[in-house]
Amino acid sequence: MGHRTVDFPAWLAERVQHVEGVLDQLLPPAGTEPESLHEAMRYAVLGPGKRVRAALVYAAGEASLQSGTAAAAQEIALDHAAAAVELIHAYSLVHDDLPCMDDDALRRGRPTVHVRFNEATAMLAGDALQPLAFELLALMPIAPALVVQASQLLARSAGSLGMVGGQAIDCDSIGVALNGDQLQQMHSMKTGALLEASVLLGGIVAGAGSSARQGLESYAAAVGLAFQVVDDILDVTSDTATLGKTAGKDAAGNKPTYVSIMGLEGSRELLQSLHAQARAAVLPLGPAAGRLADIADYIVGRDR
Amino acid sequence: MGHRTVDFPAWLAERVQHVEGVLDQLLPPAGTEPESLHEAMRYAVLGPGKRVRAALVYAAGEASLQSGTAAAAQEIALDHAAAAVELIHAYSLVHDDLPCMDDDALRRGRPTVHVRFNEATAMLAGDALQPLAFELLALMPIAPALVVQASQLLARSAGSLGMVGGQAIDCDSIGVALNGDQLQQMHSMKTGALLEASVLLGGIVAGAGSSARQGLESYAAAVGLAFQVVDDILDVTSDTATLGKTAGKDAAGNKPTYVSIMGLEGSRELLQSLHAQARAAVLPLGPAAGRLADIADYIVGRDR
Repeated sequence: MGHRTVDFPAWLAERVQHVEGVLDQLLPPAGTEPESLHEAMRYAVLGPGKRVRAALVYAAGEASLQSGTAAAAQEIALDHAAAAVELIHAYSLVHDDLPCMDDDALRRGRPTVHVRFNEATAMLAGDALQPLAFELLALMPIAPALVVQASQLLARSAGSLGMVGGQAIDCDSIGVALNGDQLQQMHSMKTGALLEASVLLGGIVAGAGSSARQGLESYAAAVGLAFQVVDDILDVTSDTATLGKTAGKDAAGNKPTYVSIMGLEGSRELLQSLHAQARAAVLPLGPAAGRLADIADYIVGRDR
Repeated sequence: MGHRTVDFPAWLAERVQHVEGVLDQLLPPAGTEPESLHEAMRYAVLGPGKRVRAALVYAAGEASLQSGTAAAAQEIALDHAAAAVELIHAYSLVHDDLPCMDDDALRRGRPTVHVRFNEATAMLAGDALQPLAFELLALMPIAPALVVQASQLLARSAGSLGMVGGQAIDCDSIGVALNGDQLQQMHSMKTGALLEASVLLGGIVAGAGSSARQGLESYAAAVGLAFQVVDDILDVTSDTATLGKTAGKDAAGNKPTYVSIMGLEGSRELLQSLHAQARAAVLPLGPAAGRLADIADYIVGRDR
């Protein structure tokens, strides 16, 4: 199976632009005190980014709406939820890039936050982005019971049994021979948990019922893993200029990847089956789930 | 005015023991995966600690209860809120001690987390403690609208306009001549915001009305600042063995402190007036606020 590049769908490009404006509005304004901290937070979040997580929030929201169109309050809530997952993702990248972690100088084609500012500011910017995400959820103008569900979900996906736990396992596994199951477990926590939470947050905000939530969960699990498999494939098949981050880094760092465990062909076969799972999972949601299918196509076919 | 040492009140010692058990229960169990991360989280949170923030949650809750006694659900909610503020406090200490920040090897008389484990694990442990705090709030068995208020308050107090913002100003101010107002602003963010949030969280969980909340806010502001003034005084008057952390560190680091700006006597006078403000603020709450007054006495009179 060849690696077919899928272009960004037009609606997704529009959403990326939209969420950029939302983040710009919801982050602390530039020039306000504490100035360097706020500047670093904005630098970490704004600018080039795929915004896959935000797109998943919107697409899952649209797929789950009972009435077909979002009420104004739901639209604001989707904006806040989309911003919240992007803040969590951005903070994790800032901390991941620090010298005590991956020690990476380049991210999305720009100097990483600790290179552009300094280590202390980078750590604090990450530390401040995280509660801002929970503040944005608390400010969603929807039923408080749904806000509480959303907050619990995001907290769990970002914590020691989710994203941070996956990072910890990743750190501990350098030079260690993980098998396929262990690798899948690590990635389902490190990358999958927040991607899954993004999908489910959209569903919660839009009032998805329990059968819709089941479809979203299955879709989210497949897409979450597919995302990482593609990352591992791109790490060996792409170059630094295209990726906007250092290519070949995982291979060089002796980190276990899907490619190192199951080979390039095996990884592409796994990817194909995850893609099919994702598309099948949202079929019962009908045409409203078209954008979720678009995102699955894009994640699988992306070249960076 | 001499520095009179106030012993830990018996009820407070009992509460400290109680919250220790609560934290032990609510933290990820020892020996569960990811093992080293969970071990580091538990090491960072459990063990010696004053638990002033947890005590403030309980005391403010008791002062605000409409019926005089907490319902079972309120007791659980107070436990979760108390644990949440302790988790935020603990994470901030772990990150503050890292080499890129204060580079401290000793905390509460024990090796700091990055010394006991390693830098990456310390950073990740802090990163995972923060969402756990928000998860515990989301799991409070009280009206969802109150949970949302609590979550918003904690998020704001922990963020760039609260605790982390104060740390950023503190970092940026090394070697810079802050005046008294700027110093007060920095500390009201760095230390005061979370102490204030602790008091208000207790009030929210216990269903405090708006006049009770006003009293709690004034109390909290005074106690929050008093706490820092005492810290600065102890930094120059105490020794490392008594403090359980490196004494004279702020003075040596050329950090502005109340003592460096207004002298030891001036600092003690400020402390006395903050103490009076705190006690006066909770007088209208009646005898139920006795424990808040006790905590103010303890904070002002503590020797470590």
